[in-house]
Amino acid sequence: MEGDPTLRLRVFDLNCWAIRYLSKRRQERVGLIGDTLRQEGFDLVLLQEVWSEQDYSDLKAKLGGCYPFSHYFRSGVIGSGLCVFSRFPILDTLLYQYSLNGYPYMLQHGDWFCGKSVGLVVIKISGIVFNVYVTHLHAEYCREKDAYLPHRLVQAWELAQFIRHTSKAADVVLLGGDLNMHPEDVGIRLLRGWTGLRDAFAEATHFEGCEAGCTLIPNNCFTVKTELLPFPLGIRIDYILYKAVSSFTVKCEELKTTMGTAPGMDIPFSDHEAVMATLHIQRQRQAAGANLGTAEPTLADVVTEARTEVGVGLRAAQRQRYSTGRMAVLALLLLLLQAVAALGALAGLAAGQPFPKLSFSLLAFLAIGILLLATGLHLFHTMEVKMLQGTEEQMRMALRALQEHP
Amino acid sequence: MEGDPTLRLRVFDLNCWAIRYLSKRRQERVGLIGDTLRQEGFDLVLLQEVWSEQDYSDLKAKLGGCYPFSHYFRSGVIGSGLCVFSRFPILDTLLYQYSLNGYPYMLQHGDWFCGKSVGLVVIKISGIVFNVYVTHLHAEYCREKDAYLPHRLVQAWELAQFIRHTSKAADVVLLGGDLNMHPEDVGIRLLRGWTGLRDAFAEATHFEGCEAGCTLIPNNCFTVKTELLPFPLGIRIDYILYKAVSSFTVKCEELKTTMGTAPGMDIPFSDHEAVMATLHIQRQRQAAGANLGTAEPTLADVVTEARTEVGVGLRAAQRQRYSTGRMAVLALLLLLLQAVAALGALAGLAAGQPFPKLSFSLLAFLAIGILLLATGLHLFHTMEVKMLQGTEEQMRMALRALQEHP
Repeated sequence: MEGDPTLRLRVFDLNCWAIRYLSKRRQERVGLIGDTLRQEGFDLVLLQEVWSEQDYSDLKAKLGGCYPFSHYFRSGVIGSGLCVFSRFPILDTLLYQYSLNGYPYMLQHGDWFCGKSVGLVVIKISGIVFNVYVTHLHAEYCREKDAYLPHRLVQAWELAQFIRHTSKAADVVLLGGDLNMHPEDVGIRLLRGWTGLRDAFAEATHFEGCEAGCTLIPNNCFTVKTELLPFPLGIRIDYILYKAVSSFTVKCEELKTTMGTAPGMDIPFSDHEAVMATLHIQRQRQAAGANLGTAEPTLADVVTEARTEVGVGLRAAQRQRYSTGRMAVLALLLLLLQAVAALGALAGLAAGQPFPKLSFSLLAFLAIGILLLATGLHLFHTMEVKMLQGTEEQMRMALRALQEHP
Repeated sequence: MEGDPTLRLRVFDLNCWAIRYLSKRRQERVGLIGDTLRQEGFDLVLLQEVWSEQDYSDLKAKLGGCYPFSHYFRSGVIGSGLCVFSRFPILDTLLYQYSLNGYPYMLQHGDWFCGKSVGLVVIKISGIVFNVYVTHLHAEYCREKDAYLPHRLVQAWELAQFIRHTSKAADVVLLGGDLNMHPEDVGIRLLRGWTGLRDAFAEATHFEGCEAGCTLIPNNCFTVKTELLPFPLGIRIDYILYKAVSSFTVKCEELKTTMGTAPGMDIPFSDHEAVMATLHIQRQRQAAGANLGTAEPTLADVVTEARTEVGVGLRAAQRQRYSTGRMAVLALLLLLLQAVAALGALAGLAAGQPFPKLSFSLLAFLAIGILLLATGLHLFHTMEVKMLQGTEEQMRMALRALQEHP
């Protein structure tokens, strides 16, 4: 790499939708993913939603020959679902768990249990240091009234901050994953603006795949068609992003997506389409300083927009904290009242007949249950408020810095 | 700084023990800390256990004149307790919350609720980039049978990894905080070995303060004397650590601790002693490469020792996960049995008389309570197992790397 030779890097990214007992034809699909990865021989494979460690072990056993290096990121109750396979040695890893990730009581959405995170692996190829990030942000269940938007924005902000702070010695930064955001969403603009990462789809010289680069499409037999009704082409929420941070240039020569089925098969890899990029990395004679800070004139506006949304989430969280606190106090009062009544009855003060024992104890148990539940929720929303406040303040600091040094 | 001039930096570190309603003479002490900081005019102030945002705001109002820049790190239910005051502009911040931090049901220890974290602030002084870290690790409640050792080791490891990954562009790294570990403990050796950080107490040219640099001493009127019985001099658990990561040298000219009372007063700042370091930072003509990787021959041994302890914690967590899971299953069986009995009684199958309603419902409520509690604990210990496994694997990777490139 001392002269001008170009390093060609083939990257594969896929949300595998491999939820044990829930995802359809999971084992068959994981097997298929493994077979294709073995045949195609990518350089780097970034996978999400590999929830079962058994699936990871199976993939590892199958891919050991062509991808001798791999890492599975553990976090949360179920795991992070994130893993990386690499043709080149993984020198180091780090996991950052997002501070907010939905609500434990939204069992039907389940994101909270997954410990959504960003994983970093450091790889050196031909003397070039690559910081490779893989992540999966909180899902969007209802675009019109997206209750999780503030949490996803906190995640996008933490992701951007984590990348900025950990990539300072890297030559090339790569990020792959299911960001659960459309290309024009504020979270994507924030992430790209604040890190300087570029979108492989937008930059690719050649593109081959679903129209508009969509990765969740009606043509895929596993997608929920009703959710995609407002988007006849589908949506693009899986990304490969990159930048060069020192005297290197990165170009995306080719970007491909699968198109509803795995190549040459009649079933898809997943309910998401895979994204495959061929990147060209070249050493520059002069440092590419322009890539470092992307002081777009609109970045301050993007941060302001994101901060406003975080503020909306903050006020909602404060209301929840208040109402759960009030509920806990009411339950406690009821319990105290019952205690007084019971003591009164014992002391023979009650004029009429004593309370029916059964309903009295049922009521007490109900009050205890509500007290415990409301206290737990109150603590949870207190944490939520703190993290939203912290993010809002960090964004305020960032805005001040942008205004002082635009 | 282009020639040889030396930058002199005065750093103050203190665990403030400012727990609202619990810490003795809190407001008086926080006022005293503020007065002293204002008079002494340090360059950097790293505080822990400032649990109340009101105390932080009071300090900020008082110190605004001499420390115009400050940051309070929010996390967990109560907060991280961490904050930084600085004479120089804070350019950027990042918070990393440790993945393990005790148990929510150990209410008497309370660490879990504090969201123990490491906070990073980036500061530039005379063109030199400082990465300043402030942290507070899990307390040690019983040295002989320290149930929290695996969690504290995971924290020490995550702290070291976070510093390594985020400090690559820094010229100087500073870490201050209450590490809750004695100087010879495996966690301190791991942290120092894996990051290359040096201990200001061990390196200081002049030292003035408690014998052996102790920061928790029997002479302090707020310390619990029985806990310090095995250590007549006290213990050293608060540290200022540093290193230069590029072409700079850092020397600790002077280290001081308070000695049981605030200077010139009859009450202490806190139950901990304050640590005050005067550092000299100088640009070198040649890069100080030796500081970067501290490939001490014993580092592999230290990582092995830490990994063994993490393994002990892992097996304990696995046992807890198993027993809470079994408890949940038993409670579920009891509930099912009751449901069958109740249905049987309703259908008139019961030969004798029906169960007494009161004790029957009480038993059902008890079973539901145990089921919920055991399930919650099972989920918690599942997460704990995952994080311990993850750390153990990272340490295994580190050991392999150390063995391959000692």
